[in-house]
Amino acid sequence: MNREIIDRIINEILQEKLKGKDGHICCKDGVCSDNLCVVHNKEGVRNIVGNGATRITASVGIEAAGGVESDLAGMIDHTLLKPDASKSEIEKLCGEAKKYGFASVCINPSYVPLCAKLLKGTDVKVCTVIGFPLGATSTASKAFETEQAIREGAQEVDMVMNVGMLKSGEYDYVEHDIFAVVSTARRYRVLSKVILETGFLTDEEKIKACVLAKRAGADFVKTSTGFGKGGATMGDIALMRKVVGSTMGVKASGGVRSREDALAMVASGADRIGASASVKIVSGETAEATKGY
Amino acid sequence: MNREIIDRIINEILQEKLKGKDGHICCKDGVCSDNLCVVHNKEGVRNIVGNGATRITASVGIEAAGGVESDLAGMIDHTLLKPDASKSEIEKLCGEAKKYGFASVCINPSYVPLCAKLLKGTDVKVCTVIGFPLGATSTASKAFETEQAIREGAQEVDMVMNVGMLKSGEYDYVEHDIFAVVSTARRYRVLSKVILETGFLTDEEKIKACVLAKRAGADFVKTSTGFGKGGATMGDIALMRKVVGSTMGVKASGGVRSREDALAMVASGADRIGASASVKIVSGETAEATKGY
Repeated sequence: MNREIIDRIINEILQEKLKGKDGHICCKDGVCSDNLCVVHNKEGVRNIVGNGATRITASVGIEAAGGVESDLAGMIDHTLLKPDASKSEIEKLCGEAKKYGFASVCINPSYVPLCAKLLKGTDVKVCTVIGFPLGATSTASKAFETEQAIREGAQEVDMVMNVGMLKSGEYDYVEHDIFAVVSTARRYRVLSKVILETGFLTDEEKIKACVLAKRAGADFVKTSTGFGKGGATMGDIALMRKVVGSTMGVKASGGVRSREDALAMVASGADRIGASASVKIVSGETAEATKGY
Repeated sequence: MNREIIDRIINEILQEKLKGKDGHICCKDGVCSDNLCVVHNKEGVRNIVGNGATRITASVGIEAAGGVESDLAGMIDHTLLKPDASKSEIEKLCGEAKKYGFASVCINPSYVPLCAKLLKGTDVKVCTVIGFPLGATSTASKAFETEQAIREGAQEVDMVMNVGMLKSGEYDYVEHDIFAVVSTARRYRVLSKVILETGFLTDEEKIKACVLAKRAGADFVKTSTGFGKGGATMGDIALMRKVVGSTMGVKASGGVRSREDALAMVASGADRIGASASVKIVSGETAEATKGY
């Protein structure tokens, strides 16, 4: 990717960010300047729904219409990714997802067949992770892992970007790495999300990463793995939404532990939440099985 | 794998452990009871060397002969696995490995081609990680990742066992998962190590994991990824050495930060050390590039 183009985009966005007001950051004076707003660009929303994102329930500003509170569960990927999670914990996770109507369960690839079996015939999707959590395996392996997971029943894939290559200025590598997963997923009409691991990135790198994910055709950008530095912040969500516009999804993950956290992320522009404390978020109960990651 | 066999092995080993003395734990009263000792079973050592482990430089008791101090560098996998490691940091790592004569550089798969190029014609091996660090991807993906890494230049592979499946009692799954990587590596005469992630395991689970790794034909067992709970301990190394015997290697990794740490691991039975503080371990210098993981 041409560095001049990236520099121009970064400058534009950072200037915009500096000028920005609190609140509905993709509009200025109530008018959308660049068709990036889900409130004012319903066509864009229809496009992403048409591309396979069937649960675009909210975005910047949507919460004002009262739609979020009633469908918070439907925005949550109910997540259990710790390496020592047992089959019985995964079974409990799937049971909770069905009970509360979460968007998906997000689990490691070796549990995809089990979850696909347990969730067959329900609206809860099976979401898995690719190149997780370091994002530093080979591109060919990420593509293979994607196809294997889909064949075993995965309906959404959250892949980790190669952070080290981004930091090395290898933008073509990063874009191709993302594209290898996205294009594999798309062949099967499976949704793809790109985890940026924002805690390792400067604002400029976050913008570059969003631009690369968008160019590669991903459906979502996502903040964090939950295993690295930091987690989702309102500032990062707003920045990511600003860069990718309304035709892509933004998933907030890492450290989202309460209803207040989740609603703050939605208010900042997230339309998907990754959480292990999902039961607590929607009901106030604490789910034993989902403590930890 | 038959549960009765596992239970019998565990009982035998735990009883042995309870009876054991400090020091050279695989011998009792100066006589090896079961041919598990590298000091008294030189044939076993020759076997593993013949199988591709060319740097079995020490094991239990060897340090007494003064061989370790002179070849500590040759036992160390110089490691940089953090996800944001840049190409320039990897280049520095390879330079240090050549300068100090480390056994290998241990890096993420996406840096295998770079390291293979930088280390061509040297004695420093390229070691990479498989299913890392969670060990929870699919078996097929681990096998593919192994072959891909080897084709790109990897000469040793450190794979992570599926901890969740072990905890679920799925021993056949775990053994097959290890075997898929080991058999792929062996086809190319590449050394394989199995990371148990001991910090998540009970003593019984550590023994089961060692038995499964041995049955699957792995060359080494290894304690930790450095990303999960805990790290290498002297007790774990001694236990692992006791279970796998002298015909397999034992690699201590995770939290080995000083020369004293490294020598303690060797005294406990390790014949390979994974460390990022390798330069400090062998020279007392602090290497800027290798701070962190």
